[in-house]
Amino acid sequence: MLEDLKQEVLEANLALPKHGMVTFTWGNVSGIDRESGLVVIKPSGVEYDVLSYEDMVVVDLSGNVVEGRLNPSSDTATHVVLYRAFPNIGGIVHTHSPFATSWSQAGKGLPAFGTTHADYFYGEVPCTRPMTTEEIEGAYEAETGHVIVETFETRSYEHVPGVLVYAHAPFAWGKSASEALHNAVVLEETAKMATHTIAINPQVSTMQQELLDKHFLRKHGKDAYYGQKR
Amino acid sequence: MLEDLKQEVLEANLALPKHGMVTFTWGNVSGIDRESGLVVIKPSGVEYDVLSYEDMVVVDLSGNVVEGRLNPSSDTATHVVLYRAFPNIGGIVHTHSPFATSWSQAGKGLPAFGTTHADYFYGEVPCTRPMTTEEIEGAYEAETGHVIVETFETRSYEHVPGVLVYAHAPFAWGKSASEALHNAVVLEETAKMATHTIAINPQVSTMQQELLDKHFLRKHGKDAYYGQKR
Amino acid sequence: MLEDLKQEVLEANLALPKHGMVTFTWGNVSGIDRESGLVVIKPSGVEYDVLSYEDMVVVDLSGNVVEGRLNPSSDTATHVVLYRAFPNIGGIVHTHSPFATSWSQAGKGLPAFGTTHADYFYGEVPCTRPMTTEEIEGAYEAETGHVIVETFETRSYEHVPGVLVYAHAPFAWGKSASEALHNAVVLEETAKMATHTIAINPQVSTMQQELLDKHFLRKHGKDAYYGQKR
Amino acid sequence: MLEDLKQEVLEANLALPKHGMVTFTWGNVSGIDRESGLVVIKPSGVEYDVLSYEDMVVVDLSGNVVEGRLNPSSDTATHVVLYRAFPNIGGIVHTHSPFATSWSQAGKGLPAFGTTHADYFYGEVPCTRPMTTEEIEGAYEAETGHVIVETFETRSYEHVPGVLVYAHAPFAWGKSASEALHNAVVLEETAKMATHTIAINPQVSTMQQELLDKHFLRKHGKDAYYGQKR
Repeated sequence: MLEDLKQEVLEANLALPKHGMVTFTWGNVSGIDRESGLVVIKPSGVEYDVLSYEDMVVVDLSGNVVEGRLNPSSDTATHVVLYRAFPNIGGIVHTHSPFATSWSQAGKGLPAFGTTHADYFYGEVPCTRPMTTEEIEGAYEAETGHVIVETFETRSYEHVPGVLVYAHAPFAWGKSASEALHNAVVLEETAKMATHTIAINPQVSTMQQELLDKHFLRKHGKDAYYGQKR
Repeated sequence: MLEDLKQEVLEANLALPKHGMVTFTWGNVSGIDRESGLVVIKPSGVEYDVLSYEDMVVVDLSGNVVEGRLNPSSDTATHVVLYRAFPNIGGIVHTHSPFATSWSQAGKGLPAFGTTHADYFYGEVPCTRPMTTEEIEGAYEAETGHVIVETFETRSYEHVPGVLVYAHAPFAWGKSASEALHNAVVLEETAKMATHTIAINPQVSTMQQELLDKHFLRKHGKDAYYGQKR
Repeated sequence: MLEDLKQEVLEANLALPKHGMVTFTWGNVSGIDRESGLVVIKPSGVEYDVLSYEDMVVVDLSGNVVEGRLNPSSDTATHVVLYRAFPNIGGIVHTHSPFATSWSQAGKGLPAFGTTHADYFYGEVPCTRPMTTEEIEGAYEAETGHVIVETFETRSYEHVPGVLVYAHAPFAWGKSASEALHNAVVLEETAKMATHTIAINPQVSTMQQELLDKHFLRKHGKDAYYGQKR
Repeated sequence: MLEDLKQEVLEANLALPKHGMVTFTWGNVSGIDRESGLVVIKPSGVEYDVLSYEDMVVVDLSGNVVEGRLNPSSDTATHVVLYRAFPNIGGIVHTHSPFATSWSQAGKGLPAFGTTHADYFYGEVPCTRPMTTEEIEGAYEAETGHVIVETFETRSYEHVPGVLVYAHAPFAWGKSASEALHNAVVLEETAKMATHTIAINPQVSTMQQELLDKHFLRKHGKDAYYGQKR
């Protein structure tokens, strides 16, 4: 079942080490088939260099395994909460990529400092609030999803396709698993640049709103003019 | 048409990922044939690992496509403004290389801290002023070129073959596409060193003028004595 | 003798350069056969690209060579002190990996800033006290082991499988040579992230105890639920 | 002539890019045959990926070309001054490796913060004084050598086999070209660690003298016990 989606999710997972995004097994990509409501996700704790098509796990939107001989990622409950809350996303990436994770650990949202950021994220990539003791000791992975969803009550998950989970690490998403991967790589790269930017100029302010508008809107939405016509 | 130039521009584009200068498609190189006034440039949004000779786009100095089946880089209007204003350049490189971009985002010119810088850039690599709302909302890419040209009203584009566009990223240029590539790589490397230099010594001052003169002039101009006789 | 252990120790040594953990010969891995009380360790000063199975040195728990034609690592005396004091470890890794070494040089324990750290280390990775003149001028390598052991009088070596030796570099350990290697790589990665974290937010505080508990205990101990059933 | 030395100098030059020490042609290695007083050095401005045995240039201790069809490195005059002043060295490496160069640009000597440094450099790696206008405008490359020699009037060039030239970059040396290369790589690595060390702890002090003694002397001098018997 879901042969194409499994292949895409596998390839997006394998792209993580290629882009220098993961150490050991610290990352996972999933993709959803919206028609059936089924999610394909990486198995838990399997090394990337042995990860194969057959290892992909299929779960439903409650996180129950529908197909697969391995346990799904321990972060599966977070993924399904996001798929339920964000109806227009098709893929999710979670990593502990070093610079984005450092912003998560610092408890700071990633400011929009330049057009690289603006090309993908329409404003700050927010950092979630700290989770409560009840959330941590309860259904922790699902609660991680809930605190992400709460963070987007006041912003658009389609305009800002990523988040920094407080004291944890980033999640990114997109219309597909491969777009989610793309956004995760951009998030790491912009987090790296932002780290250097504040070192060079501790008084730096965020970019002008007009420039943010210009760059985001020339790549996204109905008037986009970047790239080739599809 | 322009077979040799297309090949050189292709090779300079392909050298960008080789030198670690680009993530995804964030960069473009162009070259100009001064006799015909035609510019060869990378197509917009095409991945480097599939970029081929046939993908190269030829535009005139107004940015109109003369040959090619793909859209030219979305930064084409910036390139042609620079070719019109800087008559002695033959190639232009634009990247979002991380350290140079961080200086752009910090809104700071890159100071001449040492001889590595002085071997290629005769003084600070300037950061442009912020663009106005009118410029951003108008012919944005052409206006980006104009603000670069304005920045060089008071300095020589031949002595300082690069610039940091405020809240955006660097452009570099040279007598050819390959020299422009070379200068772009040097700009990133010196931006990296400058970032470390101010971290090590926040009170550091720029290098002595005599040393700047010595290094720039031993590689450039009529009394140069670096390298092999051509 | 000890064929399997030699092979595992060789492979863990060869994995050090693969993970970017060593410059030249700056690192060594050992493993112990608890039944015989014999330790297999890298020879001193041999380059990784020529290191072979036959080069492995077998020593007893006093550091005397039992088998092997080469001198054992100059850090052998430290390893055997740790094997004697920490009965449940099966492997030890010593490197001068750059970020963990920088924390050693800074004389600071590595704080638990996020879940990446918490997945492997149950709290701060401590920095030892400075060694005394007597210790340095005496049986220096053995004393290095003793000061590590002293550091763990007030914490569990099983919950925190690594240490930063003051003005020197890290040691990490685990149930086997390969688990020790894994912990050494994680220590370097978390040291890198912690360096960035305090640069981004100099006022950052360590992570919540509940989150530390949650992450450490979901991977370690009897209620672990990360990964696949063995 | 000098076949073995040419081969060793070629290999040491080719090792520079392998160790990530150079961008483009920014580096050169030389070696001396003390019997004949002849020096083999890299030609000026030749790319490493095309550098061959036949390109090696032989000069005398006045810097005059004795053999070779290419111009020697533009830094040749610096090399020969060092060979004349430091009778026990057999090889010299000059690079613009990024972290060591950043310390040069910062105008700061590289402090001995830990045992990695102490294993190779017996105390601070000094930064030269700024050169005078007369020195810069005169025989600049030879004067660069003289200011290095002056820096070692009060310290041993054998105990500290490297230097940071103010606002320029490092030189390192050793008993042979390959030992000089080794010291240059260590200098870069310790400069990287020192940069991180002061970021982690701005109040850090240099290492204890006893520990510096211990590490330097266990690898150097008559009582050394690191590595294998030769």
